[in-house]
Amino acid sequence: MIAPYNNIMEQILVIGSVALDTIMSPAGYSKEILGGSAVYFSISASFFAPVNLVATVGMDFPEKHKKTIESFGVDLEGLEVKEGKTFRWEGSYVKDLNCAETIDTQLNVFAEFKPCLPKGYEKSKYIFLANIDPDLQIYILKKFSGKRFIGCDSMNHWIKNKRESLKNMIKKTSIIFLNDSEAKMLSGESNILKAGKYLLSLGPRFAVVKRGEYGAIIFSKDFTFMAPAYLLEDVKDPTGAGDTFAGGFMGYLAKTDKINEKNMRNALIWGSVMASFTVQDFSVNRFLKITRKDINKRYKEFNSLISLKG
Amino acid sequence: MIAPYNNIMEQILVIGSVALDTIMSPAGYSKEILGGSAVYFSISASFFAPVNLVATVGMDFPEKHKKTIESFGVDLEGLEVKEGKTFRWEGSYVKDLNCAETIDTQLNVFAEFKPCLPKGYEKSKYIFLANIDPDLQIYILKKFSGKRFIGCDSMNHWIKNKRESLKNMIKKTSIIFLNDSEAKMLSGESNILKAGKYLLSLGPRFAVVKRGEYGAIIFSKDFTFMAPAYLLEDVKDPTGAGDTFAGGFMGYLAKTDKINEKNMRNALIWGSVMASFTVQDFSVNRFLKITRKDINKRYKEFNSLISLKG
Repeated sequence: MIAPYNNIMEQILVIGSVALDTIMSPAGYSKEILGGSAVYFSISASFFAPVNLVATVGMDFPEKHKKTIESFGVDLEGLEVKEGKTFRWEGSYVKDLNCAETIDTQLNVFAEFKPCLPKGYEKSKYIFLANIDPDLQIYILKKFSGKRFIGCDSMNHWIKNKRESLKNMIKKTSIIFLNDSEAKMLSGESNILKAGKYLLSLGPRFAVVKRGEYGAIIFSKDFTFMAPAYLLEDVKDPTGAGDTFAGGFMGYLAKTDKINEKNMRNALIWGSVMASFTVQDFSVNRFLKITRKDINKRYKEFNSLISLKG
Repeated sequence: MIAPYNNIMEQILVIGSVALDTIMSPAGYSKEILGGSAVYFSISASFFAPVNLVATVGMDFPEKHKKTIESFGVDLEGLEVKEGKTFRWEGSYVKDLNCAETIDTQLNVFAEFKPCLPKGYEKSKYIFLANIDPDLQIYILKKFSGKRFIGCDSMNHWIKNKRESLKNMIKKTSIIFLNDSEAKMLSGESNILKAGKYLLSLGPRFAVVKRGEYGAIIFSKDFTFMAPAYLLEDVKDPTGAGDTFAGGFMGYLAKTDKINEKNMRNALIWGSVMASFTVQDFSVNRFLKITRKDINKRYKEFNSLISLKG
């Protein structure tokens, strides 16, 4: 299960949530399964480079879930266990497989999350600030000096309620990942090309707009690249697809450790490939059943699907 | 304005509608402008190969519109002028630029359209049956013998009311073009990959599913290829995008006159390129202002947008 990478590779740090999700989808009902942005991101990225995870859970967090994350080689020294209950989210895809309907959110210990970096984590060159309070994202960034490649995510809640903090945070990052409705909301543009340009105007070098089953677009000063999403017959649970995408994207960059146009284009494809696996099963279950070989095979199939030369 | 092709090229025949459209969009209001599936298709295809048009209009059809179509070198001997009024359609994109809301439809002379092929038209090797009654589409196909490459389109109305005729017609064609909601409706599948496989099971060699601003997918027994749509800041009027797409697609095939995987993949891109021009202005106005050079330039830009190599 443990992903094949060597020890001299650049490390990735993710700060986000570890959650217990309850999911209803046309494929069934799954109660209190392993979820959270940091989980999806780290397991996806673990196939490319070593990952350090910073998050918080309650005393009720099952040991088996911890073991699942660790089985991918993800370092959990930064997973703080606090008095209280783990963050819980309940969502349904019964009406629309492309759009989660939130049924219940219980922040629990996640409400007072104050990220704490274990010694050694500050060496991580690639950092992903998953969707948390932008003030916390800024707080974390202050702990780092020197050259880093920083990715971030956010959501409509922060766009609405903490717009200035969010813009201030985005300015300090290398790449922002947003889905199309968030990009449109933040920019005030209904056109995705205008929205992408707006995101770049906030300061990051790259902006990625995720379009769910329709793929993703990366914007930069020098180039724009877009790809559709991999075609699947069996979508069971789209939860975590965006974080899995970001994990594959950032993981591939950490593996190559070279930020250039070719690698950024490829990173988008690797992100799409990883996301295509996640949605095929509940939680991170699909990743428990695949190897690097399966990932490489799908990368090739995906290339044939989108390449003019076949 | 006349497109550059030589006389030995294979000819294309389109049977469809010529209409007067009244369009409301966020970009403005345009009354009784030139529209119709055969118009969009033929003007788009005219940039690649000679096109013969079969359709019907009323006595009120403005001479200037006829001249506009002819300025692209489209042969209008098959445009029958009948006692009565021209087909009129009124639609609005004010609520959603991606989805037309029909305000009014007046079939007029189009209600009794019985396609008549002028002498010489039967030589056309590439035939496009635009969205008309599937029984009429079958009636036309009976007039042809020998090897032809036949494309067809349809719509929800025929899927609902003439399903068996439609399936019978699709069986006789080489390629079917449907938008995603139509493909899902006809197949009864909510998954686009399953819908694509269903379309192929009806008999055509290729099936193209159009996804509007999200691009298109071509399915075949041997390969699947998908591309996003070209990114535009200035979408004024999406009317005719699908027929323009089919025109570029079939036009390119007629130009190369070779049905193989490489050409089919490229045809999808040329179709997308042509559609990207149409939506930038009302009616076919954008095509009045561009040359083959502009089209080639956008093809290159589009390739760079979707290619892993840039």
